[in-house]
Amino acid sequence: VMTTAKTYDIAVIPGDGIGKEIVPVAQQVMEKATEGVADFRYDDFDLGADRYLRDGAILPDDELERIKGNDAILLGAIGDPRVKAGVLERGLLLRMRFDLDQYVNLRPSKLYRGVTSPLADPGDIDFVVVREGTEGLYCGAGGAVRRGTPHEVATEVSINTAFGVERVVRYAFELAMKRRRHVTLVHKKNVLVNAGDMWQRIVDRVGEEYPQVTHDYQHVDAATIFLVTEPSRFDVIVTDNLFGDIITDEAGSVVGGVGYSASGCINASKEYPSMFEPIHGSAPDIAGQGIANPTAAVLSAAMLLRHLDLDEAAERIERAVESDIEANAGIDRSTQEVGRDILSRL
Amino acid sequence: VMTTAKTYDIAVIPGDGIGKEIVPVAQQVMEKATEGVADFRYDDFDLGADRYLRDGAILPDDELERIKGNDAILLGAIGDPRVKAGVLERGLLLRMRFDLDQYVNLRPSKLYRGVTSPLADPGDIDFVVVREGTEGLYCGAGGAVRRGTPHEVATEVSINTAFGVERVVRYAFELAMKRRRHVTLVHKKNVLVNAGDMWQRIVDRVGEEYPQVTHDYQHVDAATIFLVTEPSRFDVIVTDNLFGDIITDEAGSVVGGVGYSASGCINASKEYPSMFEPIHGSAPDIAGQGIANPTAAVLSAAMLLRHLDLDEAAERIERAVESDIEANAGIDRSTQEVGRDILSRL
Ligand SMILES: CC(C)[C@H](C(=O)O)[C@@H](O)C(=O)O
Ligand SMILES: CC(C)[C@H](C(=O)O)[C@@H](O)C(=O)O
Repeated sequence: VMTTAKTYDIAVIPGDGIGKEIVPVAQQVMEKATEGVADFRYDDFDLGADRYLRDGAILPDDELERIKGNDAILLGAIGDPRVKAGVLERGLLLRMRFDLDQYVNLRPSKLYRGVTSPLADPGDIDFVVVREGTEGLYCGAGGAVRRGTPHEVATEVSINTAFGVERVVRYAFELAMKRRRHVTLVHKKNVLVNAGDMWQRIVDRVGEEYPQVTHDYQHVDAATIFLVTEPSRFDVIVTDNLFGDIITDEAGSVVGGVGYSASGCINASKEYPSMFEPIHGSAPDIAGQGIANPTAAVLSAAMLLRHLDLDEAAERIERAVESDIEANAGIDRSTQEVGRDILSRL
Repeated sequence: VMTTAKTYDIAVIPGDGIGKEIVPVAQQVMEKATEGVADFRYDDFDLGADRYLRDGAILPDDELERIKGNDAILLGAIGDPRVKAGVLERGLLLRMRFDLDQYVNLRPSKLYRGVTSPLADPGDIDFVVVREGTEGLYCGAGGAVRRGTPHEVATEVSINTAFGVERVVRYAFELAMKRRRHVTLVHKKNVLVNAGDMWQRIVDRVGEEYPQVTHDYQHVDAATIFLVTEPSRFDVIVTDNLFGDIITDEAGSVVGGVGYSASGCINASKEYPSMFEPIHGSAPDIAGQGIANPTAAVLSAAMLLRHLDLDEAAERIERAVESDIEANAGIDRSTQEVGRDILSRL
C-alpha cells in the first residue's frame, strides 16, 4: 500500500509529576487522529526534576540544539517540590520559551457543555488570552544586595519592547478577525505608566489597521472582577507575560478547572519550534497514582496539530474531547480510562 | 452639659466621581456612631480631577503638609477619564500612600449574610489581605527610551527591601493571632526569584516567632484559582503591592462586589496619618446620579474609627451595616436611602 503520510519530528518532554502520565495519552490520541495522514518521529527528552537531581543538568545546550531540530514540542509539566522554586521553571521552561522566541502564549478558555463552573451563572464562556511570552517581568533581570541581612534590597525588572509588544498585539488582532472581532488590552497603565503607555499606544495604532475589530482596555485588577462576574464579555484578551499568567489561571478555574485548559507557546514566525503544554502544573500531590486528567494535554496536542496545519485532525480531537467531557464530566476516571474514552470517540 | 468627647482632626478627600457622593454619607454615619464620645474637625481637600483640570495642581506640598497635621484621612476615590491614566493615581493617591509611609494596605473580604456571591457554592468567606503599600512595582522606578519609535524600550522596576517586607509580614502575623491563626504568603517566587526568595525567607523567619500561627505559600496564579474554588481556606494573606491589588479586586467580586469592600492604608508606626478608602474606584459611569452604594465608604469610616481606638463605635457601624445588608442587599436604593437605612440601624 502506498502511503502519503508526512512525517513530523516531535520533541517530547514529559517533565515532572503528572506530566509523565498525561503526555503518553496525548501522543496516543494524536497518532490515532492522524492515521494515514501524518507520522510522528518522537525525540524523547529526559528533562525535569529527576534528571536535575540525578546529574545536575537542567537544559544542556546540546539538548536545546536537538530540540530546535524538531517541528514542534509536546510538554507535560515542570516543577517539583524537591527542587528550589525557580530553578527548573527558569532554567528549563522559561529558557525554552525565551530561547525559542515563543512570543505568543496562546491560552483559550472555554466552558464545555457538561462541565460545572464554580460560578452560579457563568454564561457562554469562550475567549482566548494572547499572553506575551518573551518579555516583561519574566526576563530574569533583577538582583539582590545584602542578601539575608536586614539591609537586603531585591529588585525585579520588567523589560518591554515595541518590537515584542507589536508582534503579539498584531497576532491578537489577526486572531480576533477569525473570532468575534473584539480585543481587550489588559494592563495596569495607571501605575505601570511606562510599559502601560507603550502597550496602549501600540494597541491603538495596530487597531487602526483592523477597522472591523473593536478594542477596549481594562486594568488587570478590574479584569479579575469581570472574569468572575461576566466572563462572556471577552473574546480576545492581549496582555503581558505576568498578567497573562495570572488571569489565565483564574480563567481556568472559572471554566471548571485548569484540567481543561491547553496552551501553545508559539513562535509565530516559525524560526523555532513551538511548544504545547497544559496550563496546569505537575500536581505532585496526585502524581504517580494514575488519576491525573489528561484532557488538557490532549487538547494541547490538538493545538500542536493545528500549528502543523493538520487542522482536520485537530478538529477531530477537539470534537472527541468535547463529547467526552459532555458525557463524562464529573465522573471519577483514571488517566487511562479518559484516554481510552477519548480514543473511542475519535 | 459637660462633655468628655475628644476631638479628632480628619482630612477629607472626596476625590473623583462617586467619591464626592459617598464620603458625606460615611461622615454622617461616623458622627452618629460616636455621639458624645468623639467630635470631628474636618479639613476638606479639593483634590482630584476637577482641581487638576482647573489649575493643574495634583497634590501641592503645602497641602500634603496640612494633611499630615490630621489624625486620619477619609478618601473617596481617585480617577477620571478626562485625565490621562496614571497622573492622579500616581501624583495623588500613591503619593499619599508613599509619602505618609502607609505600608500596610489592609483589605478585609467578607461575604455578608444576604449578599449573593457570583460563586455557586461560596462557603464562609472571611479573610484579610495584608497588602504591602510602599514598595514593589508601585515605587515609580522605570522609564522608556526611543518613545514612540519601533525601537522603544520601556521598563518597570520592582524594588523590595527586607525592612519593608519584614514590617508588613510582622503585621500579618500579629493580625493572624487575633483571627484564625493562619498566614498565606502569595507571590510568584518561581519566576520573581530575587523578591520572592526574600519574601519567603522573611515569612519563615518571622513565622518562627509565632509558633501558634501556621503559614503556607501560594503562587499568585494559584491563589486566583483558590479565590474562586475555595475562598474559605484563607485567613490572612500577606503579599506585595501589585499582587495585593489584583487579588483584592478578585476577592471583592467573589464576596458579591467591591461595593462592600473597605480598606485602610495604614502607617502602623503612627508617624503619619493613615488613610481609609473603599477599594472600588470612582465609577465615572454612574457618577452624579445619586445611586452609588456608600457601604464600602461607611465600612472604611468604621476602620478609621478603629484606628483611632474608637472600637465600640466601629463595631456599632459594622453591625448596622451587616444588618442593613442582610435586610436590603439586592434592593435598588439611592445613596441617600442606603445612608438613611444604615443610620437608622445604629
Ligand atoms: C511554572 C511557571 C513558570 C509558569 C509561568 O508562570 O508562566 C506557569 O505558571 C504557566 O502559566 O505556564
Ligand atoms: C487606583 C489605583 C492606583 C489603585 C491601586 O492600584 O492601588 C487601586 O486599584 C487600588 O487598589 O486602590
